[in-house]
Amino acid sequence: MQLGMVGLGRMGANLVRRLTAAGHDCIVFDTDPEAVQALVADGATGSNSLEDLADRLEQPRAVWVMVPAGDPTSAVVDHLARVLAPGDTVIDGGNSYYRDDIARAAALAERDIDYLDVGTSGGVWGRERGYCLMIGGDTAAVQRLAPVFAAIAPGVGAEPRTPGRGPEPVEAEHGYLHCGPAGAGHFVKMVHNGIEYGIMAAYAEGLNILRNAGIGATAQQADAETAPMTDPEFYRYDLDLPAVAEVWRRGSVISSWLLDLTAAALVESPDLEDFSGRVSDSGEGRWTAIAAIEEGVPAPVLLTALTSRFSSRGLDRFASKTLSAMREQFGGHAEKPA
Amino acid sequence: MQLGMVGLGRMGANLVRRLTAAGHDCIVFDTDPEAVQALVADGATGSNSLEDLADRLEQPRAVWVMVPAGDPTSAVVDHLARVLAPGDTVIDGGNSYYRDDIARAAALAERDIDYLDVGTSGGVWGRERGYCLMIGGDTAAVQRLAPVFAAIAPGVGAEPRTPGRGPEPVEAEHGYLHCGPAGAGHFVKMVHNGIEYGIMAAYAEGLNILRNAGIGATAQQADAETAPMTDPEFYRYDLDLPAVAEVWRRGSVISSWLLDLTAAALVESPDLEDFSGRVSDSGEGRWTAIAAIEEGVPAPVLLTALTSRFSSRGLDRFASKTLSAMREQFGGHAEKPA
Amino acid sequence: MQLGMVGLGRMGANLVRRLTAAGHDCIVFDTDPEAVQALVADGATGSNSLEDLADRLEQPRAVWVMVPAGDPTSAVVDHLARVLAPGDTVIDGGNSYYRDDIARAAALAERDIDYLDVGTSGGVWGRERGYCLMIGGDTAAVQRLAPVFAAIAPGVGAEPRTPGRGPEPVEAEHGYLHCGPAGAGHFVKMVHNGIEYGIMAAYAEGLNILRNAGIGATAQQADAETAPMTDPEFYRYDLDLPAVAEVWRRGSVISSWLLDLTAAALVESPDLEDFSGRVSDSGEGRWTAIAAIEEGVPAPVLLTALTSRFSSRGLDRFASKTLSAMREQFGGHAEKPA
Amino acid sequence: MQLGMVGLGRMGANLVRRLTAAGHDCIVFDTDPEAVQALVADGATGSNSLEDLADRLEQPRAVWVMVPAGDPTSAVVDHLARVLAPGDTVIDGGNSYYRDDIARAAALAERDIDYLDVGTSGGVWGRERGYCLMIGGDTAAVQRLAPVFAAIAPGVGAEPRTPGRGPEPVEAEHGYLHCGPAGAGHFVKMVHNGIEYGIMAAYAEGLNILRNAGIGATAQQADAETAPMTDPEFYRYDLDLPAVAEVWRRGSVISSWLLDLTAAALVESPDLEDFSGRVSDSGEGRWTAIAAIEEGVPAPVLLTALTSRFSSRGLDRFASKTLSAMREQFGGHAEKPA
Repeated sequence: MQLGMVGLGRMGANLVRRLTAAGHDCIVFDTDPEAVQALVADGATGSNSLEDLADRLEQPRAVWVMVPAGDPTSAVVDHLARVLAPGDTVIDGGNSYYRDDIARAAALAERDIDYLDVGTSGGVWGRERGYCLMIGGDTAAVQRLAPVFAAIAPGVGAEPRTPGRGPEPVEAEHGYLHCGPAGAGHFVKMVHNGIEYGIMAAYAEGLNILRNAGIGATAQQADAETAPMTDPEFYRYDLDLPAVAEVWRRGSVISSWLLDLTAAALVESPDLEDFSGRVSDSGEGRWTAIAAIEEGVPAPVLLTALTSRFSSRGLDRFASKTLSAMREQFGGHAEKPA
Repeated sequence: MQLGMVGLGRMGANLVRRLTAAGHDCIVFDTDPEAVQALVADGATGSNSLEDLADRLEQPRAVWVMVPAGDPTSAVVDHLARVLAPGDTVIDGGNSYYRDDIARAAALAERDIDYLDVGTSGGVWGRERGYCLMIGGDTAAVQRLAPVFAAIAPGVGAEPRTPGRGPEPVEAEHGYLHCGPAGAGHFVKMVHNGIEYGIMAAYAEGLNILRNAGIGATAQQADAETAPMTDPEFYRYDLDLPAVAEVWRRGSVISSWLLDLTAAALVESPDLEDFSGRVSDSGEGRWTAIAAIEEGVPAPVLLTALTSRFSSRGLDRFASKTLSAMREQFGGHAEKPA
Repeated sequence: MQLGMVGLGRMGANLVRRLTAAGHDCIVFDTDPEAVQALVADGATGSNSLEDLADRLEQPRAVWVMVPAGDPTSAVVDHLARVLAPGDTVIDGGNSYYRDDIARAAALAERDIDYLDVGTSGGVWGRERGYCLMIGGDTAAVQRLAPVFAAIAPGVGAEPRTPGRGPEPVEAEHGYLHCGPAGAGHFVKMVHNGIEYGIMAAYAEGLNILRNAGIGATAQQADAETAPMTDPEFYRYDLDLPAVAEVWRRGSVISSWLLDLTAAALVESPDLEDFSGRVSDSGEGRWTAIAAIEEGVPAPVLLTALTSRFSSRGLDRFASKTLSAMREQFGGHAEKPA
Repeated sequence: MQLGMVGLGRMGANLVRRLTAAGHDCIVFDTDPEAVQALVADGATGSNSLEDLADRLEQPRAVWVMVPAGDPTSAVVDHLARVLAPGDTVIDGGNSYYRDDIARAAALAERDIDYLDVGTSGGVWGRERGYCLMIGGDTAAVQRLAPVFAAIAPGVGAEPRTPGRGPEPVEAEHGYLHCGPAGAGHFVKMVHNGIEYGIMAAYAEGLNILRNAGIGATAQQADAETAPMTDPEFYRYDLDLPAVAEVWRRGSVISSWLLDLTAAALVESPDLEDFSGRVSDSGEGRWTAIAAIEEGVPAPVLLTALTSRFSSRGLDRFASKTLSAMREQFGGHAEKPA
């Protein structure tokens, strides 16, 4: 079927390529004409404005918006609301805050335009592997676009079926799911990313413990303020981290796609010396934490994983200085140099 | 090759079946004669004592011990030390503390008996899927037993190879790894389980957030001590958790084997009403936490995942009573009934 | 000076008594006439409606609102806005969310009515000990009401002066502080309470560790799923918690007012058997956590203290069931009974 | 009464001065003769070896050891064991691990020498304010030394008595407490310090949130990987931290001695620019965490406070690099420069 795509960055472009490969007809737009041309070369139809895009689509139209969350998405959605017609559908496939979806869906409903929020997971591997889609919005619109979602998603065969599932695969087994009304898709995607932070931190902390397993072999400073290591003889291992990540990939309880990627990163660079360790957080982790707090759900692991990212960027510095200042006040302890 | 197996519980029995299926010759012993008979029926050779087991093995012998960690394992290893001969090998495949391995290896070395500690991951699925093996001990002994490890492990083909690996698979790609000297295997397995706790908690907390996504639709208590929910309109979703777990299995960043299992559990019982929520911890999580602390490695996610298990068993009760007592003291706040 | 007080619960009544004792003239109102009569008996002037209250105050009036946060406070403030005149001041002394203060201050500014938000700490002890006041709003209004704040606050002499302070005490040394524009008072009070949660949890967790210091003396369950306690001989103490809390009150680094209260609670009930351990949270702890997250400031201790309160109320139950379900799936581990 | 003091660093010297001022007779020794001379000038009796010290004390002797924990303390205690006689007492007033106390007490008991472990809190202020003493060991020895402990401790009058206490002050109200058998004193002191870490972190994190309360006023980076700040208008405060710490000292629920010290530090340096934020940990915090884990007591706040100190020293770096590496693998996200 026909689909408009606005925003041809890495994610938008790969979606178009996957849809085109599946036989769908994509009309594409980006503020960068070169991005449009690149996809035209790959079989898409170009357009030079949102108005032009709308003209090239048959009604009822469906336009997928894949631009940065926040103001950029709002601007495109508002613009589309003016050029589309009743019965059309706008899909926000980006990383929007689900609360914005609720507002946008209500605004577009006044013009009888459907709005679907689609949390899209899969990263740079999605073009080949398929994307996991978490969808919020009106049921009829979701059903209308089922062929698009099915083409983007990995499909039933991508993984062994879950024991206990009936003979006919349910929607989720195709790799996409209508989660609920407006915002539900991005809500589920938000929590997905919150979980992702926790899992990533679990691997990262564990690997750091392994990396320091030889610390008993090096001289330990001990003075009036620092207790000596109690049992240095138990920390004398020199472990091969790329090999450990590799062995865990087969048969262990913690095998996962994130572990596969970690193993690949460690093969490239066993000491990860290309990275400084300043870890970004892109919104969903924070929003997940806020949702947990507002719901009153204890999520200490997800919250801690988030705060560790803040600390990695030095945002704990003033708090740490406060600790040092207290220690000097009560104990006369001077800070140790780095 | 020949291998003795002591301890024919679920893990020991499945190891024997996997080894027998691969053509190895297992001499087995258990204090329960029925457990021995069950495996004899599956092709193993039975024995009725550790002495008998030793007699039936050709030198240099290798005996795998698969009994509960702590005193039971120590008792069997000590007994084997008396009935085996120089050049033989004892393998502890259980969940021993790596510090015990260091002591046992030293004790057996005095009799020229090799001791290998083998962290074994895979659970009830290992017989079919293969087990991930993390091995500590003497290099020559590990090499001598390579055929056994190879038969137990999943093998190279069990997963796609990691990008960047050379044409010839390394040892870890077979699913087993010689990690280092005595204790190194159980050290790596210990951290593996510590990571496992963190990953499990990440999924569990996230699913709990999703489960409570409709909390804004129910009346919220508000009084002088309880602030009203700020934005109840943002918490009105009724999410299908089995479907969410299922959709995440395909194409998402958080797909994993633990997620596969979670999806299966939710198909069986969407509300998990068969469980009370008292979560055991079997040692490795605690030892991982202690290792992190003694190394000085920050592992807040792994530590928090562990303490959540303690709390699930009610071990936070006195601390919580202390909070309630303080609140009454300073604010006159009475506890709310359940 | 004259002050109107609306809301004569524990906090409001004690403020009136402290102000009256200091020679101020309080006109009081509550929807409960008995509450009004009780304070009239203590020297205040009663009123039977907000209109009546306004009539009895000379312009420029000042009315302190001390009712539950959220809708009750909003209703009173809105009502006062209609009965007061330009130049008057409304003071919200409750536990409002600072974001509501910003909105209310803007709304009242349209009528030339000043709005001050005053975070008030001190609990049931404030009448005797004085209250700590954190104030947001217009500078002129704060200065106009300085005599009221000074009468409520503990005063310079309540504590030894801080080394390094100049000869003339600054405002904060009196026990009240103009923190900034609208909302700043409740913002600082909010973080104050967030810190309070963290400190309370630190004491509570520590006391729980002490209480369980004898755990090595009781038989420890050990089976295939539970590792035996490594060093039971190190956990054989039977500690007297009321005495420990008492000794820490004198000379230790952790002496504090909260510790004083904890010591008092433990004298009353060494086992705290009057409490069930369901700990409420009244808003500020959640808001502090959200502020930390939105600022990107790592506050893992404050966030963890908050989530522990959620867990104390059983809100971790579904997450814990998920862990048990996973353990059954991968290891065949049945839950242990309580 | 007579007391030997070995180790005349800041703590040991101040203890001697406090004891001398109270009329006790101190025989002192240090490997640094100048340290001995300084205290002789203040009224103590010098000695030039442990043998000489022993000779100058009447039996039954009592010798207080105040040297760094670990090997230095062990060396002095072992040496004293050889020069003292049955009926004498050795007191370890340092920061020893309570497990070492258990071993030392057992070793000295073979020579009929008593060993007391005394956790000593009070820091540089103890000489003036008195020290809080937590004591483990034999009851008769504790009673014999009661005059010494009473002179070192702050005394009943140092704080208002706890409501509910009877007319006659109990031992703990003097500021010292016999907690239990060998190790009990250092165990209680250990947990005291664990709590201290938690309280310090609570203040530090809260102050950091206040310090960043104006973050909405500065331009926020927003791109495909970073969500824009949702509500910048709520983060526009410029708070005076020294004033906030000061106002909290009077009447608030979180007033404490540590807050007094924090207020003093902020007067000296509002931005704490003299500190780098590398926070040491001196053993007790780690041991408290290990005790909590081995007991199975959930202490997430204390554990998190400890791990934050590790992070402040950069020990999270490899874990953070791992996160960045994963993010590059799945999302092609490049790290942002500092």
